[in-house]
Amino acid sequence: MNKSQVYNFSAGPAMLPKAVLLRAQAELLDWQGTGTSVMEVSHRGAAFENLAQTITANLRTLLHVPADYEVLFLAGGATVQFAMIPLNLLRGKSSADYLVTGHWSNKASELARSYCNVNVVANAKVSNFTDIPSVDTWQCDPNAAYFHYADNETIGGMEFNFIPAVGDVPLIVDASSNILSRPIDVSRYGMIYAGAQKNIGIAGLTVVVVRRDLMGKALSHTPTVFNYALQSELRSMANTPPTFAWYMTGLVLEWLMEQGGVEAIAKVNQRKAEKLYTAIDASPFYCNVVQSTCRSRMNIPFTLARPELDAAFLKNAAEVGLVGLKGHAAVGGMRASLYNSMPEAGVDALIAFMQAFQ
Amino acid sequence: MNKSQVYNFSAGPAMLPKAVLLRAQAELLDWQGTGTSVMEVSHRGAAFENLAQTITANLRTLLHVPADYEVLFLAGGATVQFAMIPLNLLRGKSSADYLVTGHWSNKASELARSYCNVNVVANAKVSNFTDIPSVDTWQCDPNAAYFHYADNETIGGMEFNFIPAVGDVPLIVDASSNILSRPIDVSRYGMIYAGAQKNIGIAGLTVVVVRRDLMGKALSHTPTVFNYALQSELRSMANTPPTFAWYMTGLVLEWLMEQGGVEAIAKVNQRKAEKLYTAIDASPFYCNVVQSTCRSRMNIPFTLARPELDAAFLKNAAEVGLVGLKGHAAVGGMRASLYNSMPEAGVDALIAFMQAFQ
Repeated sequence: MNKSQVYNFSAGPAMLPKAVLLRAQAELLDWQGTGTSVMEVSHRGAAFENLAQTITANLRTLLHVPADYEVLFLAGGATVQFAMIPLNLLRGKSSADYLVTGHWSNKASELARSYCNVNVVANAKVSNFTDIPSVDTWQCDPNAAYFHYADNETIGGMEFNFIPAVGDVPLIVDASSNILSRPIDVSRYGMIYAGAQKNIGIAGLTVVVVRRDLMGKALSHTPTVFNYALQSELRSMANTPPTFAWYMTGLVLEWLMEQGGVEAIAKVNQRKAEKLYTAIDASPFYCNVVQSTCRSRMNIPFTLARPELDAAFLKNAAEVGLVGLKGHAAVGGMRASLYNSMPEAGVDALIAFMQAFQ
Repeated sequence: MNKSQVYNFSAGPAMLPKAVLLRAQAELLDWQGTGTSVMEVSHRGAAFENLAQTITANLRTLLHVPADYEVLFLAGGATVQFAMIPLNLLRGKSSADYLVTGHWSNKASELARSYCNVNVVANAKVSNFTDIPSVDTWQCDPNAAYFHYADNETIGGMEFNFIPAVGDVPLIVDASSNILSRPIDVSRYGMIYAGAQKNIGIAGLTVVVVRRDLMGKALSHTPTVFNYALQSELRSMANTPPTFAWYMTGLVLEWLMEQGGVEAIAKVNQRKAEKLYTAIDASPFYCNVVQSTCRSRMNIPFTLARPELDAAFLKNAAEVGLVGLKGHAAVGGMRASLYNSMPEAGVDALIAFMQAFQ
């Protein structure tokens, strides 16, 4: 394998921009001329405080976060938030709406049941997760504390091309797998959250963008370090944060700004996905079953006409530097994750390999 | 500043062994010949699964963990566990014992109040945190769900030189700041836990060593990813773990084994601390107020006879590569943290500087 040309299609943890890794490597033992690693410095020191402020400001810029929203960086992944969302945002109500379109939105709804009544608005299981249920079938509760959905499902490979209209009910979105991949109108949301390990950095950190008026009514048994209002007050430093993961997010955000920001990378992402779907659809050997209106730009599952060749496909792909292509056990086959960090050349290489293998 | 000789005395995040940082740097873009960074690989892949198993086995070896204990690696820091301990380990009981000997054990007791009745067994505040309350003054509850204490307090600089005898009540210890610094008889404990950013790695990861029979009775509103029994079943991968933090812990553990393990490093730690206390006690200019029986080997706070010289001390120290010495605001003055990673030469350099400054 030519190690300088490995393209990693893993769904997360996922590929990072090479420029980001090279910078992290270069300054790993001497960060900002301190003679120490960024992993070793106190989160209470001026250097790290400045870093944290810069990261927050850059994320606000990239996502155009309005002033009435707070940006939090919390430990753990999105699954932690599956519990923290009801704990923080029920605000005295007893029920919440959940739209289920795949593995992750389903898991969010299941974990919420420990804290509130869960109203499943609609469930894409009826289409075997190949289509988003028609909006006119959604059974929304006007008294729900919030409406939760996942903007992109990594396993089924479904992504929304619209923002659900849910009236005055705060809209909460798990954007773990497509945040920063295209512009998003933050003002339409009560909260946007995302585990960092796909499009924002490395595992162990979650970004929460939450409207300020929704905070401050957490249930008493909310762990303090996951209390949005407290973490807002303490600039996400109620405890020692995962400092290196923050730092990596900082590098990724700077890289993204150098690419022209979210608007510019969205065009690249669109092009990458269209190329791969076109190649799949043009071939009788490869198949993606998701409806065209909700095909994911980030995670593209596909099957081979002869599943007995799956192992050979993966082996041969790895030999030419195309790794992380094995599909999730739930759907089988292959999956190519095309996050921001995947260069267009990686997609071209994958398509060329697929055509040759076929 | 000679950057090759910076000694970082921060209380945490803290100094890492230089050999560990060099290795992390060398393989940052190509881990185990994969052509990808360890940050980029799937936690479900064979390579990372093997790493996780090796780390667990090495920690068990270093701490001599008996077979009836589980080793978990959880996201976040020890403060998360301040909430998760009552959620997981009340086991139908309504009250728990907390011994308060400083900032952290006090915080643990305060955060537990959201989940149970907290019985403060004794509080070192009576000595202004300069002595551990005499055992015969402890007001223990024989029906407590568990007894919690902190083996080392980083701010006051107090450390236990004995294991509390609490009968059949499970003993739980926050060992964040001295785990792996000296041998510990795991079998005396119900649970040992430690945030990684002092002696085990970097911020964002907590190690939990818990007796198996105590698990499985978590309260229903325990977040699943912090449910000890579930994480035990799923080998700490109920969700995407902080993979890079795990990896760094792996490197630190291997380094520690190369040093001869916990038993060997304990002797070095003892010598380092004795040297610094001797230097402080021999000087009328420096002062440490903690009783000799409970002085910490890990965190040594000291004050200058003329506090107006604090700023000059810190500035001059930094100029010769001695950083992170500013004491916590609660006690003022200086603090030297001498975790495993601090070489004896660093302590010698600090003592030489202190004598010159005086």
